[in-house]
Amino acid sequence: MSEKPAVKVGILMGSDSDWPKINGVAKALEEFGVGYEAHVMSAHRTPHIVGEFATTAVERGLKVIIAAAGGAAHLAGVVAAHTTLPVIGLPVPTPELGGLDSLLSTVQMPGDVPVASMAVGMGGPRNAGLFAVQILSLSDPELAAKFAEFKTKLVDKITAKDAKFQESLAK
Amino acid sequence: MSEKPAVKVGILMGSDSDWPKINGVAKALEEFGVGYEAHVMSAHRTPHIVGEFATTAVERGLKVIIAAAGGAAHLAGVVAAHTTLPVIGLPVPTPELGGLDSLLSTVQMPGDVPVASMAVGMGGPRNAGLFAVQILSLSDPELAAKFAEFKTKLVDKITAKDAKFQESLAK
Amino acid sequence: MSEKPAVKVGILMGSDSDWPKINGVAKALEEFGVGYEAHVMSAHRTPHIVGEFATTAVERGLKVIIAAAGGAAHLAGVVAAHTTLPVIGLPVPTPELGGLDSLLSTVQMPGDVPVASMAVGMGGPRNAGLFAVQILSLSDPELAAKFAEFKTKLVDKITAKDAKFQESLAK
Amino acid sequence: MSEKPAVKVGILMGSDSDWPKINGVAKALEEFGVGYEAHVMSAHRTPHIVGEFATTAVERGLKVIIAAAGGAAHLAGVVAAHTTLPVIGLPVPTPELGGLDSLLSTVQMPGDVPVASMAVGMGGPRNAGLFAVQILSLSDPELAAKFAEFKTKLVDKITAKDAKFQESLAK
Amino acid sequence: MSEKPAVKVGILMGSDSDWPKINGVAKALEEFGVGYEAHVMSAHRTPHIVGEFATTAVERGLKVIIAAAGGAAHLAGVVAAHTTLPVIGLPVPTPELGGLDSLLSTVQMPGDVPVASMAVGMGGPRNAGLFAVQILSLSDPELAAKFAEFKTKLVDKITAKDAKFQESLAK
Amino acid sequence: MSEKPAVKVGILMGSDSDWPKINGVAKALEEFGVGYEAHVMSAHRTPHIVGEFATTAVERGLKVIIAAAGGAAHLAGVVAAHTTLPVIGLPVPTPELGGLDSLLSTVQMPGDVPVASMAVGMGGPRNAGLFAVQILSLSDPELAAKFAEFKTKLVDKITAKDAKFQESLAK
Amino acid sequence: MSEKPAVKVGILMGSDSDWPKINGVAKALEEFGVGYEAHVMSAHRTPHIVGEFATTAVERGLKVIIAAAGGAAHLAGVVAAHTTLPVIGLPVPTPELGGLDSLLSTVQMPGDVPVASMAVGMGGPRNAGLFAVQILSLSDPELAAKFAEFKTKLVDKITAKDAKFQESLAK
Amino acid sequence: MSEKPAVKVGILMGSDSDWPKINGVAKALEEFGVGYEAHVMSAHRTPHIVGEFATTAVERGLKVIIAAAGGAAHLAGVVAAHTTLPVIGLPVPTPELGGLDSLLSTVQMPGDVPVASMAVGMGGPRNAGLFAVQILSLSDPELAAKFAEFKTKLVDKITAKDAKFQESLAK
Repeated sequence: MSEKPAVKVGILMGSDSDWPKINGVAKALEEFGVGYEAHVMSAHRTPHIVGEFATTAVERGLKVIIAAAGGAAHLAGVVAAHTTLPVIGLPVPTPELGGLDSLLSTVQMPGDVPVASMAVGMGGPRNAGLFAVQILSLSDPELAAKFAEFKTKLVDKITAKDAKFQESLAK
Repeated sequence: MSEKPAVKVGILMGSDSDWPKINGVAKALEEFGVGYEAHVMSAHRTPHIVGEFATTAVERGLKVIIAAAGGAAHLAGVVAAHTTLPVIGLPVPTPELGGLDSLLSTVQMPGDVPVASMAVGMGGPRNAGLFAVQILSLSDPELAAKFAEFKTKLVDKITAKDAKFQESLAK
Repeated sequence: MSEKPAVKVGILMGSDSDWPKINGVAKALEEFGVGYEAHVMSAHRTPHIVGEFATTAVERGLKVIIAAAGGAAHLAGVVAAHTTLPVIGLPVPTPELGGLDSLLSTVQMPGDVPVASMAVGMGGPRNAGLFAVQILSLSDPELAAKFAEFKTKLVDKITAKDAKFQESLAK
Repeated sequence: MSEKPAVKVGILMGSDSDWPKINGVAKALEEFGVGYEAHVMSAHRTPHIVGEFATTAVERGLKVIIAAAGGAAHLAGVVAAHTTLPVIGLPVPTPELGGLDSLLSTVQMPGDVPVASMAVGMGGPRNAGLFAVQILSLSDPELAAKFAEFKTKLVDKITAKDAKFQESLAK
Repeated sequence: MSEKPAVKVGILMGSDSDWPKINGVAKALEEFGVGYEAHVMSAHRTPHIVGEFATTAVERGLKVIIAAAGGAAHLAGVVAAHTTLPVIGLPVPTPELGGLDSLLSTVQMPGDVPVASMAVGMGGPRNAGLFAVQILSLSDPELAAKFAEFKTKLVDKITAKDAKFQESLAK
Repeated sequence: MSEKPAVKVGILMGSDSDWPKINGVAKALEEFGVGYEAHVMSAHRTPHIVGEFATTAVERGLKVIIAAAGGAAHLAGVVAAHTTLPVIGLPVPTPELGGLDSLLSTVQMPGDVPVASMAVGMGGPRNAGLFAVQILSLSDPELAAKFAEFKTKLVDKITAKDAKFQESLAK
Repeated sequence: MSEKPAVKVGILMGSDSDWPKINGVAKALEEFGVGYEAHVMSAHRTPHIVGEFATTAVERGLKVIIAAAGGAAHLAGVVAAHTTLPVIGLPVPTPELGGLDSLLSTVQMPGDVPVASMAVGMGGPRNAGLFAVQILSLSDPELAAKFAEFKTKLVDKITAKDAKFQESLAK
Repeated sequence: MSEKPAVKVGILMGSDSDWPKINGVAKALEEFGVGYEAHVMSAHRTPHIVGEFATTAVERGLKVIIAAAGGAAHLAGVVAAHTTLPVIGLPVPTPELGGLDSLLSTVQMPGDVPVASMAVGMGGPRNAGLFAVQILSLSDPELAAKFAEFKTKLVDKITAKDAKFQESLAK
């Protein structure tokens, strides 16, 4: 993780136990060489740290913040309250309600303070990272080229899978 | 509203349009002569005001805070993050999802930071006020006596309704 | 469990099989040195025992009752019907509906008879205990000081977790 | 309503405002000449009255109890706790959650204490009455004959509706 | 299972794989010495057999039919369509939707054709059997006495559990 | 409605009150000149009529049956049980649960007896008719040509709407 | 899989990991000797391939397309947008929301573009195949005869299961 | 609407009837002087137009696309399939299921193809516009300054509302 590129994306999670569920965010960013920092901080247990992080995010050079939380998932909303940067909310699945609680707590924001929600489970974590890449690509032609290439390769990835599947069917 | 008793309860709502839906809170408190203050403040649009309100609540003499919000209802959780006082969350119904979003955003709190949720709709607002009265009664014998009397009178209220209903049936 | 402090909190559960799911309630109370009694009693199978327990709770010195149940979770509501004390409802997760049944049965109380609901799963059990502590703190300065200290230490707990997480990232 | 036949069915409702939503229960019983009594009583506000009603139901000659309630609908369960008679639960629709709360609170009973739930909305109230008739028919041949005749006439009712519908189509 | 008492209750299930999930029905009936027959038959795959079973149920001496099914659970409704006997619907849990599909398909019956639904999971199967016992008790004083005794013993069962729980706490 | 073409599609509805909600089915069929018959018949109140209708559908020349019902919507499943023809289920919205009950009761069929479900509300009724047209088109080249033309015109319909919308924006 | 009959049905799935969950589709088609092709292709990652597949389906001799996907399951809808053939949607279960997301994304289509949805889980995959058989049977008397025979044998299958179940009960 | 600034944002809606529900998007963009184009186009009825729009969006100078749809809301996903630009999904409320269908169809995207979802109802439309502004602000310092100012003024807006509310309370 040393020699990281300039940090453009902040990844926050409400609990360190969320990391295995959401580290697809980091993997996607690394795939595109986008620098990030990741922190455990809680909207409810460390509100001042979250507030400080969000308030100073612009001056520290961050461009996008991704906030992952489960249950009454307030982290993304609280971050959005304290920054002008685009905030991506990532609802973390919960064992009881499957993450419907996390999803609704993340996405149903009132007017004036947007949070852009990704899927609970499914491609949520990976897409949170990729969406940050798409935003950054708007002012970074090199990154945009990489993303365009990635997009093109999706076709190869799926056609390869189909080819392999055809083989398995033929057996 | 003049000559109010000492303010013990803070009522917060995320939007002034919530007041008609939740003013049962205030009516319940007034019924028991419990002083309150009520404010429009938003966890997302005025986070510092909410933080300030919650942080100074103890020193200003508040004993209980009731926070009402709808959708991704973060107000109660954010208040709870900044105070040691008991926080009662009141989920406000929403036209699309009926307030299931408000309820889950309010009640599904992570450990260490409790929010006590009342019903979405139903007796929610009235009960938020009454629950504050019950808490205050623990250290206020006069209020406790009033609440015990109220509790006794519930029987009369319902038996009167039943008597009236029997009359209507007999017609 | 011997030499317990004065019993201030009653913990009720509908089934002994609920205990492993909710004993976070007791741990939280023990952490703060708050005395409690815990009982298996059922709103449906032993209604008179529940009624007796709730009716005599005040005179026996209880200040708060926490009632945990799953499915058509009536225990908290039935207790609330028979006492003037604040009642905290703790919905227990269910394997089929994830505890949505428990949650709605606990929280959607009609007016006049409040039940304060905690989360189903998530921090529910721990927060039920902590919320009782917050209520008791209002008339117990020593306990209030302990809770204020606990609140402060939450920051250390999370920052320590973040520090450890940063180390794991750096590897 | 005078000159009612022997009272066999008790209808309880948590609030007098439920009556217009559930009086299909009474209409169904009247259609079959089954005597009933109907009362407003609340599991939460008048628990002793409910307990007394349920406990003495057998000796007063009741055979079936129908309990209607909305939200955290505990009435049927509380009645079932205090009687050996079959209890039919009728979940009353709620404006916020559509009565999903009422339904789950009524039907998801733990073992040993059955409540037989009817539909929320739909044919719920009428069917609660008819189901009581079906139970009573088991030991009342005259009533059984009436119900069998009613069952046969359902066909005529629907075929008449279809005939009328065919006419409307032909226009 | 030989020397069974007169068969009073019919238990139907849509699939033989449902039996392990619902045999609490049979156990409850056996506990009270109530004779039953149990069959695998499907509203969708063997509609004529179901129709025949339901249509002839009265003349074969059945008093109550319990129908268990999962998913688009039509069995109880189809049985109810063909008989004047009380039909108890038992929704079987499903792995995808937790049995919410089974519950709604069972309970949301239109007017004129009642199905009395038990819980999905929870005490559903046991209570289906016990509810049949309660119905049969209305015209069988001996069974009624047994059920009254069972009801009384519920208290002992729970108080014994509580006593054991107190011991475990005291360790 | 006179001079109807050969009847190929049967439309069944559980209640005549469903017609205004589902007559989009008939309009779609008329648009394509596909003959249909429509009947009120109930899986629960007139099971024999439904059984007879479904059993004789093939010999009467029907090719597709569309069955619309609400709540515990068993009509499509019961029809499918008695015919080899493709059955399209149309869940009718319900005021309490929005038709989630109708949808799950229609779509969650067990293996061996397919029901093809359309949307609850949305384009459900119209699409039920159109899907029947698509099925019939497979062996009716003239109808297939009409449907292909319809498909092409969808583009014109939407582009016309967009043109009109652009005008409204320009004002 | 060699010597396959003429390909009449196209099976598409969004991910190769869906195959074990949905290969009941293929088994049902094979049981009836209906030729099919199956492909991994994604509405989101390979939209042009999906568009091409759907657009050319008629000329390649396909009669029915079955599209299986999970989460925001757009595959069936996108296929339906590009073809006049009947499209059967098969919602794939998801670990977080149980496939409610897949079901609603598949079935709630707007007017003009039908997708016929099968169950999420339950008999969904098998029924997707069988429903295709039913459609094809309308213009293939031999297949129709096979399906009619299959339908008849369902009775034997279930009565055999019941016989075996009776034996197990008798033990 | 004449003299619009350079078009940076594309707003798509599946039906012209959605416009009154979502035109908060446009108002938010106008408030910030951000140029947009808005079109009615349907993923299902005009897939080629949607594909063409999305594929050429980059070269036509668009930076962000906002796609609004209801029910099986595939529009945002289909647009995302054809472009490298960030796509914001706006789920439109539906009368039957409240827009839960729209929300899940929009947000539960598989990996590799992100759609950023806003709230169904609530602040969804306004926030879709504001989120586009936040993205554009990253490379437009003037816009960033405007947004920062807007953010600051939120406090004034809410404090003014609170002041007015205090006056109304004082009456």
